[in-house]
Amino acid sequence: MFETEDIGLNEQPVTPRPGEKVIELLVPVDKYLSAGVHIGTHICTKFMEPFVYRVRSDGLYILDVRKIDDRLRIAGKFLARYEPAKIAVVSVRQYGKKPVSKMCQYIGCKTFTGRFLPGTFTNPSLKWYYEPDIVLLTDPRADAQALKEAAEIGLPIVSFADTDNKTDFIDLVIPGNNKGRKSLALLYWILTRQVLRERGAIPPNGDLPEQPTEFEAEV
Amino acid sequence: MFETEDIGLNEQPVTPRPGEKVIELLVPVDKYLSAGVHIGTHICTKFMEPFVYRVRSDGLYILDVRKIDDRLRIAGKFLARYEPAKIAVVSVRQYGKKPVSKMCQYIGCKTFTGRFLPGTFTNPSLKWYYEPDIVLLTDPRADAQALKEAAEIGLPIVSFADTDNKTDFIDLVIPGNNKGRKSLALLYWILTRQVLRERGAIPPNGDLPEQPTEFEAEV
Repeated sequence: MFETEDIGLNEQPVTPRPGEKVIELLVPVDKYLSAGVHIGTHICTKFMEPFVYRVRSDGLYILDVRKIDDRLRIAGKFLARYEPAKIAVVSVRQYGKKPVSKMCQYIGCKTFTGRFLPGTFTNPSLKWYYEPDIVLLTDPRADAQALKEAAEIGLPIVSFADTDNKTDFIDLVIPGNNKGRKSLALLYWILTRQVLRERGAIPPNGDLPEQPTEFEAEV
Repeated sequence: MFETEDIGLNEQPVTPRPGEKVIELLVPVDKYLSAGVHIGTHICTKFMEPFVYRVRSDGLYILDVRKIDDRLRIAGKFLARYEPAKIAVVSVRQYGKKPVSKMCQYIGCKTFTGRFLPGTFTNPSLKWYYEPDIVLLTDPRADAQALKEAAEIGLPIVSFADTDNKTDFIDLVIPGNNKGRKSLALLYWILTRQVLRERGAIPPNGDLPEQPTEFEAEV
């Protein structure tokens, strides 16, 4: 379905890791490929340029799989250092709902799916007020309200970002296709596993009892 | 010495925080100003564009003080979550030596100043081998060896970066003038204080017993 030349693994990536050796990815390349985590959009913001591997002849921007892998690792390290209940994971859009819920089921974080109620992070007089220590967003555009409130109170913000996203106020960007059903499932599955590995809840090569497909939203 | 229009606080900054209120800076504006933390270089990489407030008529890029302030806050939050002895702080360049040593004296991190011995992070057979959990760099260009090794073993990398720096492999960028003696002293002083505040070692509005000037390298 995807040509292998799309993913930047059979040739030198745009910016090779310095002193690069063979670095193992978190999941096999074909798993990344078939989920389409690397498929960007036809728009590329200057903020996301560093994460782009190449532009396909039809004008589609392709993300660098290595960089996606790398940032999932780093994000796992960061998130693992926070108290589970103080991590807020947000997805306004439909396809992120299931992956986010699944992640929170495993790592104990707090889910914010569907419409993000204004004031959730900022207005203590609301019944649904909640003050996290860190937030993870699925899409900075769709999750703009959560982004705005988190930035307002100075929370660290981790966010998935596609080639068409702006990354203002995001402290740690995880590049990736945040539109696709399968892509979101795989990204959240890997991140969940990384957090559990970093916490020591599962061994460094341990796996989740479920497959990434279980993280997919129903069609 | 600096015109106030340089710093982006007396008019609307390039990208205002969404829903912006009056946000207090970590130190008074004039303190930032007189240390010149916002003074960039005549070169601006596309990676650093998001942090630039404006270009002076003589072609000097000026960093956005708000964004510097913001990232110091976030970096403090992140660093505070790590075991002190597992934080490596690196400065090959001269002016970073004193600020880095001072920081490590307060927060208990490990100092790597002067020439960075190759293999320090990657070669367990060396006598000076050391494996941190996170690294903080003063200048990604001067500290390229440490950057390379940290990236190689997948460590989270926090780094100061000036307008002329590339930010490859850096996970959290703290924009700022990383060349000036006074600027480095103030940046490290604020960061040190933030880490201690976040750890609860000093109250949320507590101060260090020393002034930023004590962090300055001797001329």
